[in-house]
Amino acid sequence: MALIVQKYGGTSVANPERIKNVAARVARYHRNGDQVVVVVSAMSGVTDNLIKLAKEIMAMPDEREMDMLLATGEQTTIALTAIALHALGIKAVSLTGAQAGIVTDGVHTKAKIQNITPKRIHELLAQGHVVIVAGFQGQTPEGQITTLGRGGSDLTAIALAAAIKANLCQIYTDVDGVYTADPRIVPNARKMEEISYDEMLELASLGAKVMQSRSVEFAKKFGVVFEVRSSLNDNPGTIVKEETKSMEGVVVRGVSLDKNQAKITLVAVPDHPGIAARIFKAIGDAAINVDMIVQNISHGSGKPATDLSFTVDKPDLLKAQKVIEGLKSEIGFDKVIATDKIAKLSLVGVGMKSHTGVAGKMFDTLAREGINIDMISTSEIKISVVIDLAHGEKAMKAVHAAFIG
Amino acid sequence: MALIVQKYGGTSVANPERIKNVAARVARYHRNGDQVVVVVSAMSGVTDNLIKLAKEIMAMPDEREMDMLLATGEQTTIALTAIALHALGIKAVSLTGAQAGIVTDGVHTKAKIQNITPKRIHELLAQGHVVIVAGFQGQTPEGQITTLGRGGSDLTAIALAAAIKANLCQIYTDVDGVYTADPRIVPNARKMEEISYDEMLELASLGAKVMQSRSVEFAKKFGVVFEVRSSLNDNPGTIVKEETKSMEGVVVRGVSLDKNQAKITLVAVPDHPGIAARIFKAIGDAAINVDMIVQNISHGSGKPATDLSFTVDKPDLLKAQKVIEGLKSEIGFDKVIATDKIAKLSLVGVGMKSHTGVAGKMFDTLAREGINIDMISTSEIKISVVIDLAHGEKAMKAVHAAFIG
Repeated sequence: MALIVQKYGGTSVANPERIKNVAARVARYHRNGDQVVVVVSAMSGVTDNLIKLAKEIMAMPDEREMDMLLATGEQTTIALTAIALHALGIKAVSLTGAQAGIVTDGVHTKAKIQNITPKRIHELLAQGHVVIVAGFQGQTPEGQITTLGRGGSDLTAIALAAAIKANLCQIYTDVDGVYTADPRIVPNARKMEEISYDEMLELASLGAKVMQSRSVEFAKKFGVVFEVRSSLNDNPGTIVKEETKSMEGVVVRGVSLDKNQAKITLVAVPDHPGIAARIFKAIGDAAINVDMIVQNISHGSGKPATDLSFTVDKPDLLKAQKVIEGLKSEIGFDKVIATDKIAKLSLVGVGMKSHTGVAGKMFDTLAREGINIDMISTSEIKISVVIDLAHGEKAMKAVHAAFIG
Repeated sequence: MALIVQKYGGTSVANPERIKNVAARVARYHRNGDQVVVVVSAMSGVTDNLIKLAKEIMAMPDEREMDMLLATGEQTTIALTAIALHALGIKAVSLTGAQAGIVTDGVHTKAKIQNITPKRIHELLAQGHVVIVAGFQGQTPEGQITTLGRGGSDLTAIALAAAIKANLCQIYTDVDGVYTADPRIVPNARKMEEISYDEMLELASLGAKVMQSRSVEFAKKFGVVFEVRSSLNDNPGTIVKEETKSMEGVVVRGVSLDKNQAKITLVAVPDHPGIAARIFKAIGDAAINVDMIVQNISHGSGKPATDLSFTVDKPDLLKAQKVIEGLKSEIGFDKVIATDKIAKLSLVGVGMKSHTGVAGKMFDTLAREGINIDMISTSEIKISVVIDLAHGEKAMKAVHAAFIG
């Protein structure tokens, strides 16, 4: 008998039939004697439809009102899920974020959870209920409805698991777990049995779309062990937890490929202090996220100058280019080269900390395939390279074969 | 400068375009210096869709969960309405029923408003906001979401108008006001400038579909003067208020025709005490509403016996027939005659209290048209007759012509 938090995403509750499937799974755990808290997202498509409605009225709708609007999506799902459990003869009660005691700050559309008072959840569980909590939402101490932003339902599940000291937190999704590489590109990619928070964080931020970084960070901070698994079958998933000794034996945990990046190079930037700061302040002011930054010595004219390259999300490329062109007279670089024909290939593994030669082996593997490396960026447990988009998948397969098999 | 409550029903907020129209109207009042509290229903069709979703999962869904589910409909509209006001440059804040301080009992799907604490509404009005409140919903003292049942948004508007001591309560709908008869049947029916609560109550319960009785009863109890008017034009509507001296000068305020009734007659019921009680207890236990009841002396065999007729809503006819057939051996009547080919024609007017001869004139009018009267029922301010369905519209026209013009 365990206390379990289960989170189901939008595709798992997309229609009444799927909600019944979720209820059937929850019922199995409940009948097995487990206490279950279920966190659900809005039915897939619902949130997008609500946003569309709002934008038909106003291009930039107020964020407080967007929270009021979007919170209805999860509220709909919790009621339907409770009804589906009743239909199976299971006692179940739905709670909005506010009713579940989830208190957030007042930053609408991307609120942070401040604390959780799970009194009502504990009471309902003690009475033998399955408790169904609306993901993605909370309430400020003043009673304003807030939402947590992208990936908010995962965050709700992990924060609740921490607050009620759950034995297990299961994140149900439409994939079987976390893979060593995208199985659609690398057919012999393997599902990992376990992975450390840090590795999961790197993979999350590198384009493995399983979970948002903030939920993993939260889990790491509060030591919540969670399992990513499929709502379509009963296969065991991937356990995400604090790094263990045995994990360090594995040098490379996974390989990820991010095709959603674009690169901008400023050629012959004058080499004196404050220039980079000026450039990236302007980019930041335009609300553009920068990922990798590399500065090289320029082999240009006589003056001391460097080439400066950085990557941004593909949709931001045009905006970033305009910002940079606007700085040309002020800064005095030669020209701007922009391309969205790049891919970022990354190797992740906590074992890298104690193993040498990983970078060398990676570069060698790429060289053997005749693939040129544009940019390199490393952390303690990660190596990323930017390469030509056309070589992305070939590079991923080769590197996966070299390190994982 | 006035404090105004405006209520807009589902068809008035059916899509973004109509919500913008509502916002434009609200904005005119606001710019005129009025303080406006807006109550909105769910967009038309939304509530029905939610009910359909729930019933796909379970035939008789739990009422607490239905409240959780249906409350999302109005929550969606308040957010969109606030956004539409923002788009016009008007400060506006949406509040759920709970946030607006509407406290109800715990009878889910048909909760009664217990009290309203309009502190937050007053604060927001004082700051220059239009306040948009979700109709149809409230919260128990324990924090459970409740809904008020059919016509609940009208009730919210009238209860709020009482609580904040509004100068004016406007119920916007898709008709211009309350008419002396249905204009689709009686082309020269007139819109009334004013009508008393009691007349409105009789008309409401007699099939004039403008408003539910309970909202009118609430307005009468708390002396809330309200106006029924159209959201499609700027015509003045009908003011509903306490009866005045001048109203009594009008003998017949309006004529209504209810085609949704059916009649059951028990022939030769033994004439001894307790029989009628037995019959109507059984009908009540089956949750069937009875409208008119008439008992006649039976001209049958030698034993003391009566004929007993009563009317029910048409959809309940079969169920009522079965209940009555089940009592046959116990009570011992001769037979049951059932028909749904009837119509109920009613005259309403507070002036009837002080005018004689109204019934006589009505019966005479019908006789001249060759229309037979099946049943008669009267109150202080109303006369209703049941006639053949085929004569319903002809009867209505004749009676309207005789009394109103």
